[in-house]
Amino acid sequence: MTDKRSYAIIGTGALGGYYGICLHRSGRDVHFLLHSDADFVKENGLVLTEKDGPDNVYNVKAYGDVREMPACDVAIVALKTTANCILPEILPQVVKPDGVVLVLQNGLGVEDAAAQVAGPDRVYGGLCFLCSNKTGPGRIHYVDYGHISMGRYRPDGNDAPPGDTLRAIAADFEGAGIDVELMENLEAARWRKLVWNIPYNGLSVILRTTTDRLMADPSTRGLVERVMREVVALAAARGHTIEDAFVQKMMDYTDRMTPYRTSMMIDFDLGRPLEIDAIYGEPLRRGESAGGSAPLIRMIYDMLRFLTPS
Amino acid sequence: MTDKRSYAIIGTGALGGYYGICLHRSGRDVHFLLHSDADFVKENGLVLTEKDGPDNVYNVKAYGDVREMPACDVAIVALKTTANCILPEILPQVVKPDGVVLVLQNGLGVEDAAAQVAGPDRVYGGLCFLCSNKTGPGRIHYVDYGHISMGRYRPDGNDAPPGDTLRAIAADFEGAGIDVELMENLEAARWRKLVWNIPYNGLSVILRTTTDRLMADPSTRGLVERVMREVVALAAARGHTIEDAFVQKMMDYTDRMTPYRTSMMIDFDLGRPLEIDAIYGEPLRRGESAGGSAPLIRMIYDMLRFLTPS
Repeated sequence: MTDKRSYAIIGTGALGGYYGICLHRSGRDVHFLLHSDADFVKENGLVLTEKDGPDNVYNVKAYGDVREMPACDVAIVALKTTANCILPEILPQVVKPDGVVLVLQNGLGVEDAAAQVAGPDRVYGGLCFLCSNKTGPGRIHYVDYGHISMGRYRPDGNDAPPGDTLRAIAADFEGAGIDVELMENLEAARWRKLVWNIPYNGLSVILRTTTDRLMADPSTRGLVERVMREVVALAAARGHTIEDAFVQKMMDYTDRMTPYRTSMMIDFDLGRPLEIDAIYGEPLRRGESAGGSAPLIRMIYDMLRFLTPS
Repeated sequence: MTDKRSYAIIGTGALGGYYGICLHRSGRDVHFLLHSDADFVKENGLVLTEKDGPDNVYNVKAYGDVREMPACDVAIVALKTTANCILPEILPQVVKPDGVVLVLQNGLGVEDAAAQVAGPDRVYGGLCFLCSNKTGPGRIHYVDYGHISMGRYRPDGNDAPPGDTLRAIAADFEGAGIDVELMENLEAARWRKLVWNIPYNGLSVILRTTTDRLMADPSTRGLVERVMREVVALAAARGHTIEDAFVQKMMDYTDRMTPYRTSMMIDFDLGRPLEIDAIYGEPLRRGESAGGSAPLIRMIYDMLRFLTPS
C-alpha cells in the first residue's frame, strides 16, 4: 500500500459523508459513492455544517455508479448493515488487489459480507462514536463526538493485533482530526458498544421515545439496566468479559447526553429498514449458541420484527 | 337474604350494563349506578343490541348519585379496577347489612377494596368471558360469549366452597340466561384468566395491534406463548397448578377468535387509565414474593407504566 492512501467511501450518509470530508480536507484522495444524491453532489459538492458553524462546501469526487470509481487502497463501508447484500457487487470494483476494507458499522457479523469478497485478512472494523445527521441532499450536520475504535476482523472473535496497515489508516484519520483507538479484539469492542445500542435503539422504537425519557422514568430506567446486563451476559458467554462498572458508566453517559433520537428510531420514522439483524439477531445467535441467556433482548428482537415485517 | 334478591350495578358500562339488563329482564330488582350517562338513561332507558339483532330499550332504575340508591342484597362491582378507590364511598350505601359484594373484574387483588368495606366473608368474585362494547350513552352492544366463573373470596388464595349465597346468586344469573360456573378456588381461576390477559392486553397496547396479528407473526406468536408460560410459573409459585395443555388451549382459542382489540387497547386508545396494577402489578408482586420469576411480564409491566405515566 502506498504512503498516500486513497479511500473509497461506500455510502455517503451522515457517517460516511462526515469522515470522508474529514479525510478529503486533510489531503487524502477520497472517492464518494452516492445513491440518490449523486447528481446533486457532482454539481454542488458536499456541504458540512459543524455544530453551530457556517456551511462549508467541499467539491469532492462523487460517483453515482460504482463502475466509474477507481480501485482504492481502503474502502470504507458506511452503508446501513441492511444494505450489505450489495457489497459483493461493489467491493471488487473499488478495492485494489492489495487494498483493504474498513467496515464502520454497528452490530455483530457486519464484516462477514466484506470478508467473503476480500478475504478475512483484508478486513477491519470500526465503531464510531459520532453524532451527525443528514439534513438534505449532500448536506451533513456534525453535532458532536466522532472518535472511532478500530480493530482487525477475525471470524472467530479472538484477539488480533492491529498490524501496520490499520496503524497507517488510523494515522490518516488522526491526521484528519479524528481520534482513533486501536483495539486488540474487535468483537469485544463490538459487544461493548452493543451494551448501549441494544437497550436504547430497540426500546426507543418500541416505545416511540428518546433516550432522556427512557432514563427519566424509573420503570424504563430499570429495564434499560437489566437489558444492558443481558448484553454483558451474552458477551461473557462468547468469552468477552465486560466489567460490571461499564453498565453504570453507560447509564451515567446517557444521563449526561442531550435528549437523543436513536438511529434506529430515525430509520423507523422514515420507514427505512432497521438494523435488527446486526444489533439483535446476530448477538442473540452468537451469545445463545455459546450458552448465554437473554430473554429480554429476545423479546425486544421479537417486537422489532413484528413492527417491521420483511 | 330474601329469595327475591335486589341488585346494585356499580358501573353501568359494557359489562355491568349487559349483565344488569339480563337480570332486570328476568324479573330481578336491579338498580344501575351511572356516571356521565345518568340523566340520559333516566330519560331514555338503556339500549341493548344483541349481535345483529334490533335495539331493545329497557326502562331501568338509573341513578347518578349513589345517595339516592337503596341498599341491595347484592352489589355487583363492574367498574374498571382503576376506579376501585371509590368503593369505600359507594358500598356502605348500596349493600344491605347482610348483603354481599360480587366483584366482576379481571386481575388479582381486585376484591381487596370491597373486602375492606364489607369484610372478606361477604365478598365474591367473578371472571366474565364476555364480548360487549359500549357504543354510545346508555347503549350496549353484546357481541358474543357471556359466561361467568364465580368463587368465594379468600385473602390467602386458598380453596373456599362457594356456599349457599353464591349458589343463589348463580341461580339468578342462570335464570337470566347467563351460564355460571362455580369455582372452589377464586385465585386459581383468576390466574387461569391471566394466562390470556397478561400477554394479549399488554402486547396489544405496546405494539398497537390486535390479537390476530399477534398470532399471525411468528415472532410475536412465540413471545405470547413464552409470556403465558411465565404466568403459569407465577401461579405455580403461589400454589396454583395450571396444566401444561392450558397454554396451548389458550393459543388455539385465540387462533379461532375473530380479530380482537383487547379492552386494554381500547382503554389506551380512548386515553383512559389502564388496569395495569390488577393485571400486572399484583400478579408480579404475589408470584415473585412467592419465589416465581417472570422477566418478560415485568418488562411488559415496565413498558406499560412508561406508556401511561400516572
